[in-house]
Amino acid sequence: MRFKLTIEYDGTPFSGWQRQSERMSVQQALEEAIERFSGEAVTTQAAGRTDAGVHALGQVAHFDLSKDWDPFRVREALNYHLRPQPVAIVECEAVSEAFEARFSAKARHYEYRILNRRAPPAIERNQVWHVPMPLEAERMDEAAQLILGLHDFTTFRSSECQAKSPMRTLDAFAVSGDSEVIAITASARSFLHHQVRSMVGSLKLVGEGKWSPADFRAALDAADRRRCGAMAPSSGLYLTGVDY
Amino acid sequence: MRFKLTIEYDGTPFSGWQRQSERMSVQQALEEAIERFSGEAVTTQAAGRTDAGVHALGQVAHFDLSKDWDPFRVREALNYHLRPQPVAIVECEAVSEAFEARFSAKARHYEYRILNRRAPPAIERNQVWHVPMPLEAERMDEAAQLILGLHDFTTFRSSECQAKSPMRTLDAFAVSGDSEVIAITASARSFLHHQVRSMVGSLKLVGEGKWSPADFRAALDAADRRRCGAMAPSSGLYLTGVDY
Repeated sequence: MRFKLTIEYDGTPFSGWQRQSERMSVQQALEEAIERFSGEAVTTQAAGRTDAGVHALGQVAHFDLSKDWDPFRVREALNYHLRPQPVAIVECEAVSEAFEARFSAKARHYEYRILNRRAPPAIERNQVWHVPMPLEAERMDEAAQLILGLHDFTTFRSSECQAKSPMRTLDAFAVSGDSEVIAITASARSFLHHQVRSMVGSLKLVGEGKWSPADFRAALDAADRRRCGAMAPSSGLYLTGVDY
Repeated sequence: MRFKLTIEYDGTPFSGWQRQSERMSVQQALEEAIERFSGEAVTTQAAGRTDAGVHALGQVAHFDLSKDWDPFRVREALNYHLRPQPVAIVECEAVSEAFEARFSAKARHYEYRILNRRAPPAIERNQVWHVPMPLEAERMDEAAQLILGLHDFTTFRSSECQAKSPMRTLDAFAVSGDSEVIAITASARSFLHHQVRSMVGSLKLVGEGKWSPADFRAALDAADRRRCGAMAPSSGLYLTGVDY
């Protein structure tokens, strides 16, 4: 039986989603919890392989068990066995074998949160990017609108990105700000490695007035990684949801 | 020269606002930071003496220094010396000697946050009260409206409360809920010890359907501490602001 999980996690203590030998990953924490309640050693597959320090409000993963468990019981058992790690199963559904968390995804949604004030965050430490210089959110939004659609995103792609093509379609990219908090949302069928953090790092230069919105677009058009602003830290990034 | 500070803190690691001998308090952290930059050992006074685990977005405190420091520099120096503790000075102003953070306060504002879903919080651990049973926010709000105004709040007062009178005027008390988060706001010139957490703990019984809104009002009218529901935990409570 195949199960689809919707997962929330604080990425701070983890090496990222994906298993690796040295540090605890979200994947390992989850797979150990699955084994503890079911007795089965499984491999989970996720929609987005978030990096170290990146959070999720709506990560999606799937896995298979040989027994037909009640999905409600699976969720309760996983939340019990995941403690005290900061990972929570928000939803659990039984799905058909045709469902693949990674390959069936039609859209991925991210949010990036900036705390824009002089004082550092006291409550949201590790949950935002603290930018003390004033940023103009409207100007950042204007720049964001200039790169919607299908483009070569080489500028905003990690040099270690393993995707075959740098072409991606950015379906939504918007900046909104209330007094101290600037939220940047981005949606696409898929993203390149470090794409959101690279775009946000460059948008910050626009917000500070160092780049014009046209400079931001020109950086994209150059298709040159050296034109990217310093990448935004992982602490502000959230995988908020995945559409199927 | 007298300084007024607006302070944000994560109450989780602290014994509360007030200095005590065994555990670190917010007051001690702040007074040590003041001494580190100014060389002066001072006593700070706060508007609200929050308990262990209670957070603040807008606590207000004052203190005096013999030298006329630039308030901007005071804020920057305090934020530097407060690290790595989760305390941030959001604002710093020079004020007249007539200003007293505690005694000049005209209104105190609190917010209480409940995460109302089966899954535990992963990102907001220690920042909400996790209530897995479904709560009816509208019914809780109806009950809250029944106790506005001047009353004897003995039912909702800690047995250790040292205030001379149990009479208080509750100026605002409201419950609002979106999908998973229920926010309860309370405003008064001053509150009794444990008053907000006691009122919220009893409101939860209304939200679960165990009490009617009229039962909530009857508990107030009984002026009997034994009629109070189990007190809500400190993790969900925020001192959001103080008016002068």
